[in-house]
Amino acid sequence: MPARLAWNGYGKAAVRLVKVGRAGSRHDLSDLTVDVQLQGEFAATHASGDNSAVLPTDTMKNTVYALGKTTAVDPPESFGLALGRHFLEACPAASRAVVRLEAHRWDRLALGEKPHDHAFRRGTPELRIAEVSAERGQESVSAGIEELALLKTTGSGFEGFLRDQYTTLRETGDRIFATEVSARWRYARHSADWTDAWTSTRDALVETFAGAHSRSVQETLYAMGAAALAACPDIAEIRLVLPNQHHLLADLSPFGLPNDNEVFVATREPYGKIEGVVIRE
Amino acid sequence: MPARLAWNGYGKAAVRLVKVGRAGSRHDLSDLTVDVQLQGEFAATHASGDNSAVLPTDTMKNTVYALGKTTAVDPPESFGLALGRHFLEACPAASRAVVRLEAHRWDRLALGEKPHDHAFRRGTPELRIAEVSAERGQESVSAGIEELALLKTTGSGFEGFLRDQYTTLRETGDRIFATEVSARWRYARHSADWTDAWTSTRDALVETFAGAHSRSVQETLYAMGAAALAACPDIAEIRLVLPNQHHLLADLSPFGLPNDNEVFVATREPYGKIEGVVIRE
Amino acid sequence: MPARLAWNGYGKAAVRLVKVGRAGSRHDLSDLTVDVQLQGEFAATHASGDNSAVLPTDTMKNTVYALGKTTAVDPPESFGLALGRHFLEACPAASRAVVRLEAHRWDRLALGEKPHDHAFRRGTPELRIAEVSAERGQESVSAGIEELALLKTTGSGFEGFLRDQYTTLRETGDRIFATEVSARWRYARHSADWTDAWTSTRDALVETFAGAHSRSVQETLYAMGAAALAACPDIAEIRLVLPNQHHLLADLSPFGLPNDNEVFVATREPYGKIEGVVIRE
Amino acid sequence: MPARLAWNGYGKAAVRLVKVGRAGSRHDLSDLTVDVQLQGEFAATHASGDNSAVLPTDTMKNTVYALGKTTAVDPPESFGLALGRHFLEACPAASRAVVRLEAHRWDRLALGEKPHDHAFRRGTPELRIAEVSAERGQESVSAGIEELALLKTTGSGFEGFLRDQYTTLRETGDRIFATEVSARWRYARHSADWTDAWTSTRDALVETFAGAHSRSVQETLYAMGAAALAACPDIAEIRLVLPNQHHLLADLSPFGLPNDNEVFVATREPYGKIEGVVIRE
Repeated sequence: MPARLAWNGYGKAAVRLVKVGRAGSRHDLSDLTVDVQLQGEFAATHASGDNSAVLPTDTMKNTVYALGKTTAVDPPESFGLALGRHFLEACPAASRAVVRLEAHRWDRLALGEKPHDHAFRRGTPELRIAEVSAERGQESVSAGIEELALLKTTGSGFEGFLRDQYTTLRETGDRIFATEVSARWRYARHSADWTDAWTSTRDALVETFAGAHSRSVQETLYAMGAAALAACPDIAEIRLVLPNQHHLLADLSPFGLPNDNEVFVATREPYGKIEGVVIRE
Repeated sequence: MPARLAWNGYGKAAVRLVKVGRAGSRHDLSDLTVDVQLQGEFAATHASGDNSAVLPTDTMKNTVYALGKTTAVDPPESFGLALGRHFLEACPAASRAVVRLEAHRWDRLALGEKPHDHAFRRGTPELRIAEVSAERGQESVSAGIEELALLKTTGSGFEGFLRDQYTTLRETGDRIFATEVSARWRYARHSADWTDAWTSTRDALVETFAGAHSRSVQETLYAMGAAALAACPDIAEIRLVLPNQHHLLADLSPFGLPNDNEVFVATREPYGKIEGVVIRE
Repeated sequence: MPARLAWNGYGKAAVRLVKVGRAGSRHDLSDLTVDVQLQGEFAATHASGDNSAVLPTDTMKNTVYALGKTTAVDPPESFGLALGRHFLEACPAASRAVVRLEAHRWDRLALGEKPHDHAFRRGTPELRIAEVSAERGQESVSAGIEELALLKTTGSGFEGFLRDQYTTLRETGDRIFATEVSARWRYARHSADWTDAWTSTRDALVETFAGAHSRSVQETLYAMGAAALAACPDIAEIRLVLPNQHHLLADLSPFGLPNDNEVFVATREPYGKIEGVVIRE
Repeated sequence: MPARLAWNGYGKAAVRLVKVGRAGSRHDLSDLTVDVQLQGEFAATHASGDNSAVLPTDTMKNTVYALGKTTAVDPPESFGLALGRHFLEACPAASRAVVRLEAHRWDRLALGEKPHDHAFRRGTPELRIAEVSAERGQESVSAGIEELALLKTTGSGFEGFLRDQYTTLRETGDRIFATEVSARWRYARHSADWTDAWTSTRDALVETFAGAHSRSVQETLYAMGAAALAACPDIAEIRLVLPNQHHLLADLSPFGLPNDNEVFVATREPYGKIEGVVIRE
């Protein structure tokens, strides 16, 4: 047959694990969505239905829960490394195990000022991401953010751009800048404290968005990436995707009303999409 | 023709209004989704395409932005009343104007300890709802909550239930209780401070969920409703919908592992759905 | 306590049942989402956590699968009636059982012209809905449609409407009319052939949308409702919700290009929402 | 600064274009979602807010509508090429323009047997994808499919797999195989008829899914890929992602009921995810 399998991967996605830490009366809560993928020498199952090298994806699911019991699931980077190492051992045909973890946010409730022992409220949609790629003899860890929505009511403009026959956009020195940060950074080395590294990076992104005047989404993207590299020395590179979620100034002129950047139409479609990769020089 | 129009309503849904309060250097941010509906004597447009009584839904959209400029949009109950009154005036055929507002949460960012003047992060998915029904000579205001997700890791059980030949559920004195509160309450009178009334009610719901031991979702629902009525004297009745978002204890026994309410499988389908209306005696 | 439970209902939602008909070599496929709700005398569980009258929602789920095996699941109205009757028997405290079924569409694949015995492709998003409300001594059956998206490229206008100071909409005798039909009709009596009744009603709705010139969404809604009543004598009333999914003429005038109803911007937000109930005179 | 921009891209996403073909009384309908991205020498806007090389994403949106008027939008591959070439001309700093188009399905309605001139019903969720990457002097065209849901009620098993201490899955020679095909193939050369090429490839995928006995999702994936390459000589490689959407046999044994592959629980989470790239030898 003139066809050849050039690459393959398989696994279980969307394994939903909730773990309650019950050491003492104050409970902790971890809420993870885990994806596992194995890559390697699985040509036989593709070519001839010989499944003898294939660890079932159902087993991957079971393993997430079993190791979720026997090992710590927080920080997610460590849990991902434990899973990745396990799967390389459990499945000899696999040359690489990729584990992706999303951590969902829950905030501890407080009654009055007192933190509650065991009641929580779901937090913001912001996801903490950890991605582990484990090969025999080599491990790579990335981390990131999804669905972190930020908005500035001023401190942003867009002027002096290229024009052609289809350009109708007006220049503006003052507009709303709304985005939903998607970030992924690769660690050059294992971090001594994964949560610390994540938090420093995340805070650098947020503070740069808030603090730096923006002459384009691109300028802000680069500044955010550079700030992340400066904040966390373990990071080798960071990829950012910043949608430009347009807030259009409502046209109130037919009604004889002024609108000095006060009333906006929030839109979902279409949106700008600005991407970039910033690396350490 | 043997058919008759028994009821009708029309309007514009999903009008997305963002308003920036720019009084002074510290900006405020309101983010609303507004639905408008008119009911009344619109039979002619249905029967014969005579649109002379019909205020276009496009005009409703324009009006949301125009009144969004000329009046306050916060609290949403007041803005809804202003819109409702306006539409009854603008459209003589309308006997009722229903305005529904969803307020999306944004939290002000802080750099260090210092609150930022104009940068925000999207808050939790929890929505504050206001619903106004304005008739000529009568106004009714309701408020509510959607997508407020709460979870307790203990303090909840379900025992002593009815069994039949299809019952396999085991009794338990300790389980996770996870829900997403949907609440709607009707005010008996206009409140002196809508935000105060909303906050007191919402806090009573959350505190009761956290504080009261639960022998069924039903027991918690009733306790939450009663607490809301107790907390806010302006409320005449409250409707609650509490899905029971099952967290199944992971079965680790095939692997020789204990699981003392520690590792759970979070599920989305199917889910329990418990509803009730609690009124003031 | 000055609070009283005025109404309550509980049940299991989103039970996902797939049944394969294996009589002969040609398989049939039914794909249902089932919601069950019981209403009645369940005050004790609300007030004091006495669950002895409460049939667990887990049992409802089991019952859907068990009766799914022992009875026919197609047509969904009949399956709903079987479930409703069962739950009234199984749970003495219940005075009403409400069962809602969504049927998901699968089309049999064909290889060449030959229908395949056991391979299917998911159909359009259109859902067939059946709703049964079973009380002791009384049964009510409704049926309906969700997510049936229809579009006409012409044969629709909107002129002669009311104007006020916020009206900027231009009159048009020719526009795109796009909607997503939501319909629910109540049967006056049990139908001899539920699928026949559903199909006649649905076809009447679609043909009227396509065939009748539209001077407003309202006119089309009423015509569709009247046609449904005419097509199916078993129906007592029908409720229709027709969103007006605006397709805005793209403004190409800055580029010196004509646009004679040829190029449109499809939008999601905001949208018109037209509702009506048509009954038999 | 020790940071460097290693890669960048920007553009407009989710441009929603509907075009009505009005040549004659029978109208045609094209419904596209278009994403445009430019890559190239845009470092100045990132580094110093100099936007003079940046064609605004708003202009990209305008261009989609303007060229949507002046050129054919069907087949989407041709429209994508026209857009890609245009943007390379309009923006000298761009070295590559990537255009991605999704074509949404609409089926012409028929009244009785007669096809309607201008009324349509939304088709299945299946999307036809076209992706063009235009560089100065080089063009690459890919096509694909998203959300094509297929299901076989038999003709699928999974046996003889690797087992470890966490394996509980039972072997089966007969199960439901449900998936949602995601496919992307790259053309080695411009096709003489893009729609013909797309249709042949798509049909080969569907027929192989239906016709070939499956001993693993992997075996089916490879067979589908090989069949696509055989069906369309213009294709150089194809990437397939086949989720395994598990349908679990309902356990009716507690109720003394048999279940010979008749009643299933459809699940969404977790799911298997099988991926592979098949190339021409």
